[in-house]
Amino acid sequence: MAETLGGIASFLNVELRGDASRVVAGVAPLDTATPTEISFFANPKYAEQAGATAAAGVLCRPEDVARLPKGCAALVSTRPYRDFARITARSFDRRPRAEPGIHATAVVHATAVLASTVCVGACAVVGPGARLGERSAVHALAYVGPSCVIGADCVIHAGAVLYDGCRLGDRVSVHSGAVLGADGFGFAPDPPSGYVKVPQIGWVEIEDDVEIQANACVDRGALGPTIVRRGAKIDNLVQVGHNVEVGEHTVLASQAGISGSTKIGKWVTFAGQSAAAGHLIVGDQAVITGQAGIGKDVAAKAMVSGSPAQPTLVHHRGLAELNRLPELRKTVKALEARLRELEGRLPEP
Amino acid sequence: MAETLGGIASFLNVELRGDASRVVAGVAPLDTATPTEISFFANPKYAEQAGATAAAGVLCRPEDVARLPKGCAALVSTRPYRDFARITARSFDRRPRAEPGIHATAVVHATAVLASTVCVGACAVVGPGARLGERSAVHALAYVGPSCVIGADCVIHAGAVLYDGCRLGDRVSVHSGAVLGADGFGFAPDPPSGYVKVPQIGWVEIEDDVEIQANACVDRGALGPTIVRRGAKIDNLVQVGHNVEVGEHTVLASQAGISGSTKIGKWVTFAGQSAAAGHLIVGDQAVITGQAGIGKDVAAKAMVSGSPAQPTLVHHRGLAELNRLPELRKTVKALEARLRELEGRLPEP
Amino acid sequence: MAETLGGIASFLNVELRGDASRVVAGVAPLDTATPTEISFFANPKYAEQAGATAAAGVLCRPEDVARLPKGCAALVSTRPYRDFARITARSFDRRPRAEPGIHATAVVHATAVLASTVCVGACAVVGPGARLGERSAVHALAYVGPSCVIGADCVIHAGAVLYDGCRLGDRVSVHSGAVLGADGFGFAPDPPSGYVKVPQIGWVEIEDDVEIQANACVDRGALGPTIVRRGAKIDNLVQVGHNVEVGEHTVLASQAGISGSTKIGKWVTFAGQSAAAGHLIVGDQAVITGQAGIGKDVAAKAMVSGSPAQPTLVHHRGLAELNRLPELRKTVKALEARLRELEGRLPEP
Repeated sequence: MAETLGGIASFLNVELRGDASRVVAGVAPLDTATPTEISFFANPKYAEQAGATAAAGVLCRPEDVARLPKGCAALVSTRPYRDFARITARSFDRRPRAEPGIHATAVVHATAVLASTVCVGACAVVGPGARLGERSAVHALAYVGPSCVIGADCVIHAGAVLYDGCRLGDRVSVHSGAVLGADGFGFAPDPPSGYVKVPQIGWVEIEDDVEIQANACVDRGALGPTIVRRGAKIDNLVQVGHNVEVGEHTVLASQAGISGSTKIGKWVTFAGQSAAAGHLIVGDQAVITGQAGIGKDVAAKAMVSGSPAQPTLVHHRGLAELNRLPELRKTVKALEARLRELEGRLPEP
Repeated sequence: MAETLGGIASFLNVELRGDASRVVAGVAPLDTATPTEISFFANPKYAEQAGATAAAGVLCRPEDVARLPKGCAALVSTRPYRDFARITARSFDRRPRAEPGIHATAVVHATAVLASTVCVGACAVVGPGARLGERSAVHALAYVGPSCVIGADCVIHAGAVLYDGCRLGDRVSVHSGAVLGADGFGFAPDPPSGYVKVPQIGWVEIEDDVEIQANACVDRGALGPTIVRRGAKIDNLVQVGHNVEVGEHTVLASQAGISGSTKIGKWVTFAGQSAAAGHLIVGDQAVITGQAGIGKDVAAKAMVSGSPAQPTLVHHRGLAELNRLPELRKTVKALEARLRELEGRLPEP
Repeated sequence: MAETLGGIASFLNVELRGDASRVVAGVAPLDTATPTEISFFANPKYAEQAGATAAAGVLCRPEDVARLPKGCAALVSTRPYRDFARITARSFDRRPRAEPGIHATAVVHATAVLASTVCVGACAVVGPGARLGERSAVHALAYVGPSCVIGADCVIHAGAVLYDGCRLGDRVSVHSGAVLGADGFGFAPDPPSGYVKVPQIGWVEIEDDVEIQANACVDRGALGPTIVRRGAKIDNLVQVGHNVEVGEHTVLASQAGISGSTKIGKWVTFAGQSAAAGHLIVGDQAVITGQAGIGKDVAAKAMVSGSPAQPTLVHHRGLAELNRLPELRKTVKALEARLRELEGRLPEP
């Protein structure tokens, strides 16, 4: 919908430097925004684009206002990225919503209990005893297994799978291809005949405001739950093993992998392709950098890198040293020559 | 179902130290078990929990019996984890089974041949010429392609996909989102116009007792089969390329990746996020540690780490050396100073 | 279908050394080919198999003709792998094609526009406003979201998911479990309360001749498109973040991960499990080796390795140096002893 810059500033509670009556109809990146769109500037990499944008207005920090071209209004915010998210969600998100009601081809078990505002898409399947809260949507071809309990305002996207007994809070999103509650990887070695499968009789518990992206896996507990706490965000293709606990507001970036029974604190970051071995404890606000692999506990607020991971500073110092090694080797060789020369001048006593 | 400790000991053929008539109704982790449940103790990390458990009885090794609290019975086993798996499977696994029969919304091709005890869930699709053995189940929204041959007691979980021509033995599990038989990644470079796709006309062969977890991929052979041998276990999000052979009882942990045409022996372990380049041979019982990447053949029983992988001991020694480098550099600097001093005292001849 | 060696040579426009009238009925690997099949030899690893093959004929380079056994015809090509792909596609690919027409259980929205030759499989779902070009196929259980636009000769395999608004060119393949257009991972930190979700209102654009393999993810742009350019190939379980651009004929091998807003040039190779941080630029023909992780821009034609990645030569030299460190340490120790001895012979002045 169309908004005035003044209306936007007022909704976001930010200062506007520019024409309050100017009307905009959408949002766009700095480099493609037109004079009827707004944009945002938060990453210094895009300073040049900010300076040349054709946008009607730009959300930016106070210290960046001067970068904007003449005629471009500034929406001055201490958190421009967050405020950009807020105004986009309110006024500029035109993506289609789930069609209301239960599609004729959906298969909802007679014992499932659905709030009256629930949407179920074509060929979606909801199993016996499942429960869905107000305004929750199960999109086409998604599967909600027996006895799952899903809160209000959840979205289960097309083709997502929830095995039996998953419990979701409110405002949880599960994207396509994500699988919650599959069996944990539990096999007791019994050589020479093979392995005995350990029945995975636990469950999955997802608290409020969690987002689980496409093709991610959260295995059910072997016994008891695998838990993803309030506000955590799990990116595409992430693995969360059985009996893991992911703390509040913790972020697991794409392709990260958490092995079984590891407990992760709050506001932790696992960057892309990082990994944790099993049975570890990761403290609050720790950062595991990209491709790092932790094999032991990580203290709160620590930042670790490498595989096996060390404190990031140590890891980087090690790499720098490695690059200086040829030079060190030359120094040693030169020392040896000088020493030999000295020895030659001082005959054995 | 409820069991007595005596009944459990008898079934498992283990020694019971405690009250044989005591009745238990379930299994639970050491820290949450109640007096009507049993637990198990196998990982020393949980010794403290073992010492404080409220469980009626604990499966543990002979040397760990003394750790259990008074009043807690010991079920003494040399393989407590395996025996815990066995008793759980027999008595305490209450998860729902596939509903019997062919669901009215399932689409089973007229030429498919299903044993009379096969279950097919809602909106599952079974293609022309597919064959399914006794007691096998195809869950809701799963896809069994044309000419697939599936043995007895297999489970194809919700949303799993088997392309045409996959052959599965008995007791194979394929979890949700797993894809068997998709095209291998075969493209012949033909610059400057692009690549010519190499038709992938082989197939996938999965032997008995294999478990393939959620969102794993096993590509079909380009020519001939990709083979997963008896008893192998493939975890979530694992990649198995075309024409790979995975040996008997080999374990590929989560997010491991095996490139095309690599042959892996028996009882091999690929830990989480490890990888193999293509056309390699990995010997029996080799261990590829987490995040390691092998670029050449690995001998039987070898343990390798790092990327590119080296013997684990060499890799760890290298990392230790790296951390001692600043110290070595200081030593060399000091030597240089002392040498200079000596040279100063010995004027050129 | 059956072919003569002469007919094959003529179609491929290659020289035949052998009996032009010999009839063959299929293709097979060197080691299992029978006298009624042809094979190809391109990788020196298989020289021994080439020398012992029972194939009627083998596609190989001029310099390899002499390796073939007597009686085995040579189809002499400068690009044997490519030509093997071409002849297989023309004559020996017997895999089933999509069944024609719209399956009775498919759910095609009344406002979707399908060319008359489109195939839609059982329980597939095509959303409102979607458009599908001539001869394109949507296999069973696949999902084509609202307003998707798909060109001619595309294949959307069983269980693949296209969110709303995806745009595909001609001859695009999307394999099972692949997810196009799911929300990018955009969350603006807003501590202490959590994150504000950034609406992902962009889309996905896939140009002609792109192949996207099983369980890969291509997220939609936050604003504007995520683009995969003409001829690019994306392997199983690959992550392509929001607003990424993948250049023409670029290959992302299995489990590679590209973070948001990174721009990749033409003919680039990301090998297995490699990764790129966000907001980077990767030049044409660059090679990111297996498990490498790039944290800064990569120049055209550069080859980089390690995590964080360096030029491959520097990385390998570093690893070699690491392995020689114990020896260097010994050298330094010996120098120190010799110096001490010298110092002892030269008393302080």
